[in-house]
Amino acid sequence: MAETIYGFADKVKGFPGLAGRATWKVGKEDPRRVVHALKVGIALTLVSLLYLMEPLFKGIGKNAMWAVMTVVVVMEFTVGATLCKGLNRGLGTLLAGSLAFLIEYVADAPGRIFRAVFIGVAVFMLGAITTYVRFIPYIKKNYDYGVMIFLLTFNLITVSSYRIDNVWNIARDRIATIAIGCGLCLVMSLLIFPNWSGEDLHSNTISKLEGLASSIEVCVMKYFYDHAKPATQDESCEDLIYEGYKAVLDSKTSDETLALQASWEPRYSRYCHRIPWHQYARVGAALRHFSYTVVALHGCLQSEIQTPKSIRALYKGSCIRVGEEVSEVLRELAKSIRNNSQFSPETLSNNLNEALQDLDNALKSQPQLVLGSRNGRTPNTPVQATPLRDQKLEEETRISSSSVKNDSFSPRECKSKEHSRETPKKVLRPQLSKTAIISLEFSEALPFAAFTSLLVEMVAKLDRVMDEVEELGRLAHFREFKDDDYNDEIVVSCEKPRIHVAQNDLPSHGGE
Amino acid sequence: MAETIYGFADKVKGFPGLAGRATWKVGKEDPRRVVHALKVGIALTLVSLLYLMEPLFKGIGKNAMWAVMTVVVVMEFTVGATLCKGLNRGLGTLLAGSLAFLIEYVADAPGRIFRAVFIGVAVFMLGAITTYVRFIPYIKKNYDYGVMIFLLTFNLITVSSYRIDNVWNIARDRIATIAIGCGLCLVMSLLIFPNWSGEDLHSNTISKLEGLASSIEVCVMKYFYDHAKPATQDESCEDLIYEGYKAVLDSKTSDETLALQASWEPRYSRYCHRIPWHQYARVGAALRHFSYTVVALHGCLQSEIQTPKSIRALYKGSCIRVGEEVSEVLRELAKSIRNNSQFSPETLSNNLNEALQDLDNALKSQPQLVLGSRNGRTPNTPVQATPLRDQKLEEETRISSSSVKNDSFSPRECKSKEHSRETPKKVLRPQLSKTAIISLEFSEALPFAAFTSLLVEMVAKLDRVMDEVEELGRLAHFREFKDDDYNDEIVVSCEKPRIHVAQNDLPSHGGE
Repeated sequence: MAETIYGFADKVKGFPGLAGRATWKVGKEDPRRVVHALKVGIALTLVSLLYLMEPLFKGIGKNAMWAVMTVVVVMEFTVGATLCKGLNRGLGTLLAGSLAFLIEYVADAPGRIFRAVFIGVAVFMLGAITTYVRFIPYIKKNYDYGVMIFLLTFNLITVSSYRIDNVWNIARDRIATIAIGCGLCLVMSLLIFPNWSGEDLHSNTISKLEGLASSIEVCVMKYFYDHAKPATQDESCEDLIYEGYKAVLDSKTSDETLALQASWEPRYSRYCHRIPWHQYARVGAALRHFSYTVVALHGCLQSEIQTPKSIRALYKGSCIRVGEEVSEVLRELAKSIRNNSQFSPETLSNNLNEALQDLDNALKSQPQLVLGSRNGRTPNTPVQATPLRDQKLEEETRISSSSVKNDSFSPRECKSKEHSRETPKKVLRPQLSKTAIISLEFSEALPFAAFTSLLVEMVAKLDRVMDEVEELGRLAHFREFKDDDYNDEIVVSCEKPRIHVAQNDLPSHGGE
Repeated sequence: MAETIYGFADKVKGFPGLAGRATWKVGKEDPRRVVHALKVGIALTLVSLLYLMEPLFKGIGKNAMWAVMTVVVVMEFTVGATLCKGLNRGLGTLLAGSLAFLIEYVADAPGRIFRAVFIGVAVFMLGAITTYVRFIPYIKKNYDYGVMIFLLTFNLITVSSYRIDNVWNIARDRIATIAIGCGLCLVMSLLIFPNWSGEDLHSNTISKLEGLASSIEVCVMKYFYDHAKPATQDESCEDLIYEGYKAVLDSKTSDETLALQASWEPRYSRYCHRIPWHQYARVGAALRHFSYTVVALHGCLQSEIQTPKSIRALYKGSCIRVGEEVSEVLRELAKSIRNNSQFSPETLSNNLNEALQDLDNALKSQPQLVLGSRNGRTPNTPVQATPLRDQKLEEETRISSSSVKNDSFSPRECKSKEHSRETPKKVLRPQLSKTAIISLEFSEALPFAAFTSLLVEMVAKLDRVMDEVEELGRLAHFREFKDDDYNDEIVVSCEKPRIHVAQNDLPSHGGE
């Protein structure tokens, strides 16, 4: 007990500093929050005028309070959220108003006891039904608030009708005041420094792609140039890797919420097409699936046993190249989304496949790592290359035809190279014996094999991300890909990202 | 346009059936929802009596509507959520009431214009400040609703004070009605068929552990006994694997929400200790990190190239054993949580390490897979085994001392076995040439190496899960582990799970 009190006292002592820091940080992280807070203050003051100013008060009366309440409840940070809540509130109120009149009409005729019972039954029925309806996923996702307001207004009108003769006044006042409140909220959030959910989603997607790109790049580099760097730099590297994929892994809820809110926003892309916000969420899902492999790759860095450095050095170049190509593809995708321009899947795939081919060649060109070839026999078991797929997961692992075609890990090419490899082996051997002939156990080779395999796996999964981004470009009618404009833009691609991401913190597309 | 209309018409036509199915499914999935809907109906009817019954109405007056509104807004599915909302609403109202009086007192003296300006400024200031405060993560997480209600009530009282002389009546009515509404909600949700968030969290954690266990088991089995099964069974296998880890991957938001709600619930474990709900969320986080490896393992099944079956067959036994041991550990953890009893980390670690040792021996006992030993030289590079860790991720990969000690993948043992291996090689060779001598390329060996490496990685990550569950047992004061009771229970461990999970859909701990 004493401990609790001391702990509490410590907390209270530390509170002002802590609270101050937290408050400052919130505003620094995203200055739009300060603007939003001021907007809410202004909206509340304006709506209070309905009550404070004589002529306005005469028109609406004391139910003006409902307008104040509406502003408190409906005003949200982004346009999409405000619209969603405002429309839900408006629709719910309207529907409840009309339904309540129906019940009022039915309950009009008979005696007082009957009316009380009737009202009680109606309240029970509607209460149970609407509560149950709110569990239906589709309703919960889109109209949860509307259903609640429906129930609220319905109860308000129905129950009031017991003691007030002219319920029409209440219903009219309620609908009118809520309409005024919602209208004011919409004006404030749509016209004055609007924050668009869609824009947040857009820039989040871009920064996630870029974060993953640097995460992978650093991860691969670190695997090969490990202890060369000082500890402080090492930590910052780890942080970079960790934050890159962490942001993607944790993005499910925020992506889905933003996509939902954005789908309420009246924004259109070129030629008045609706922007397919849910496709952004799908890109996010593909990216999340992709990032599981990055986590596993990062796990290789932290593994207890490590393959000898000299072995890793043999494949350094090609592994790093694969890593860089993967990062490059992610950055290209980010650029494509940022510029609303389509990308060329062929070019990206070709680069990737060249890098894969390179890695494959590197793996094959080191004969002392070719398992079991000591006996010099040809394989007596056919290579099992049939991919295992079920319908559900098919799209998650689908490899585009181009990448399969050029993928030199396919068994056919392996066989055809079987003979030609005899010659380089003889040429290479004397050379290798001079430099690095390493006896390696299978258990020691495991981590490196896993690392390489995960790199290859990553390329396969990247394909799904590319597909989803391509689909996004198609649905959002991105500007079509032109060869020359690709070459132009590739030069500036390294510098552009950061600047634009920073700008996104301010609502740059204000008037859209 | 025509398309849109046809699409809409189709939707409308299909709607009744779809809506019926959705409605039915919601209730079937969790019958507690039906009960909850009825509870809300009853609560609303009861609270309406405040308005409908003459003696009650005389006491409270027409502000009884606020009690009805409170019930609509506060009544949530679980006790924790209702308590959180109810207490927030009550506290917010009380605070706002007292603050509004202060302002009323200040604004009491001077003329009408001054009062209007003063009220306007106060509304603006409080509106902006509370909106800003709601962005602070700690407030957002715990008191978001309370701050909103504070603003709502404050505005209501302050603005009303302009035209109503005795604002005390409004404030008293509002506090009283909201207290009545909240009280009714709490009684309904605490005493009549309560749904505890903590219980949901508890059983979710158990079923996630069990789902992962079967996911891993099936995954490993499928890798070795692939095409033997018919397609339909194959699909159900894939579904089992997928659902097992999918449930864990998607659990972040629901875990955290449930833990937060549960922390409001007045439930205590044995000896009146508070149940550490946030530790459940931490177990969930460890489990999520663990499941990334399961996703990668599943990726190995779907890889484009596969290691020849005959090679895989050589290690089938030991790989399957590792997989089974991992599943067994997860099931033991699930059992430990279910029975509120601690487990024996030593026993579980020992079994795991035996399985790992077994796998290691299997890998070493097949000389044709030992890389590069053709040259018969000893390694000329020291094996790099220093683990790379940063502070942040340290706990995520920490391997308990026991598992490091017995882990035969450590380089020391590798060296000591270097010499002794010479003999078995000679003995084994004639035998192997009869059965299966396979020439294997490194690129073909990659997927299998990755699979094995991921299995080992999984064991390492499992350690963090074990640590978190152990910590949970410590914090929640689980019954201590006894050797004989362990042996007894292990017999029934296969049958118990399903039954208990099904029972959890009904509130079994009703009176707790």
